[in-house]
Amino acid sequence: MFQRRGIMLILSSPSGAGKTSISRAILRQDENIQLSVSVTTRPKRANEVDGVDYHFKTVDEFTQMREAGKLLEWAEVHGNFYATPKAHIDELLAAGKDVLFDIDYQGALQLYDTCRPDIVGIFVLPPTIKELKHRLERRADDNKDVINRRLKTARQELLEWDKYDYVIVNNDLDNSCALVTEIIGAARISRSRQTDLPKFINSLQDELESILQ
Amino acid sequence: MFQRRGIMLILSSPSGAGKTSISRAILRQDENIQLSVSVTTRPKRANEVDGVDYHFKTVDEFTQMREAGKLLEWAEVHGNFYATPKAHIDELLAAGKDVLFDIDYQGALQLYDTCRPDIVGIFVLPPTIKELKHRLERRADDNKDVINRRLKTARQELLEWDKYDYVIVNNDLDNSCALVTEIIGAARISRSRQTDLPKFINSLQDELESILQ
Repeated sequence: MFQRRGIMLILSSPSGAGKTSISRAILRQDENIQLSVSVTTRPKRANEVDGVDYHFKTVDEFTQMREAGKLLEWAEVHGNFYATPKAHIDELLAAGKDVLFDIDYQGALQLYDTCRPDIVGIFVLPPTIKELKHRLERRADDNKDVINRRLKTARQELLEWDKYDYVIVNNDLDNSCALVTEIIGAARISRSRQTDLPKFINSLQDELESILQ
Repeated sequence: MFQRRGIMLILSSPSGAGKTSISRAILRQDENIQLSVSVTTRPKRANEVDGVDYHFKTVDEFTQMREAGKLLEWAEVHGNFYATPKAHIDELLAAGKDVLFDIDYQGALQLYDTCRPDIVGIFVLPPTIKELKHRLERRADDNKDVINRRLKTARQELLEWDKYDYVIVNNDLDNSCALVTEIIGAARISRSRQTDLPKFINSLQDELESILQ
């Protein structure tokens, strides 16, 4: 109802726990939330669109952005840089648009450093590791080595559950999405995000004084 | 899904803004939440049941409870004492039951002092003071002086909006109840309330180690 500040909704999970399925469903059903578009130095693939899938930059451009403090978080993965550009996120939040981050705990922790009040952090867990392994195996493109590497990474990731505001065990996609929707709904009416509230309170106070005179 | 700690849900508002209607609707629709039963020294009325409407106590009993630290908050109103008994609330929260407090900001602030992590505080505002006055006038039992006193009290109450986690403008009862329901839903899966999560994480870690061996 009021002008409000947008939410930075972070979804993290061990690979295969389902955060990307949940993210896609939320983006489909909620018009006011959009996926954060990262900056990257990796080459654009044929099916990718600059500004939609990524903002593609040279290493020089990337380094300049980083040194100028224009990145909220960054990481190097397999020799390529990835980052979240500050200016665009600031604009969206100020306009009351929510931004979804489908990122790992390292990115999340970096965002916490500078943006904690704007963040709602959700950690998604698999019901069992057996189920996590099944889901990884069902992805046709991942071979045994990749699956094993992902499970090893999960060791560290599982330790980070206590950095998040909410923890969801993803037994059922629909149920998990319903929970995320409730979290978003509550976050949108949190006092600190309703930036026009002080003005509204003032108007009530003025009205009250005119009646009590 | 997990054992969790209950929520202390506080609803406060200027008199007439609708917190009691919202409370009643929430209590009707949600089996896991119950109204906090206060201790009072005021005489029991004919239609009241001890232990349901209030825990009726003598002034001596009340004073003993207060001095023994058995009250979470207390106030004196028109010569009678009212308070929230600690033991019962502790029991409910530990059993994962949520407790609703339909109290004013003075009670809320006292509860904040000792129970902040358990509390979700919601402040309910009227859409306009005109509407607030209408609602007060529609209550047949309140005369002009009472209404005027309530409006004067609202002056102070309106200043306390920024002590709450959420602020709802009560334009429409159904909509306000839906918002409160979302807030409760989110609070129930907040990490800090899911007391069995560490155990569940351990079980995932054990399972992971047995697979990775």
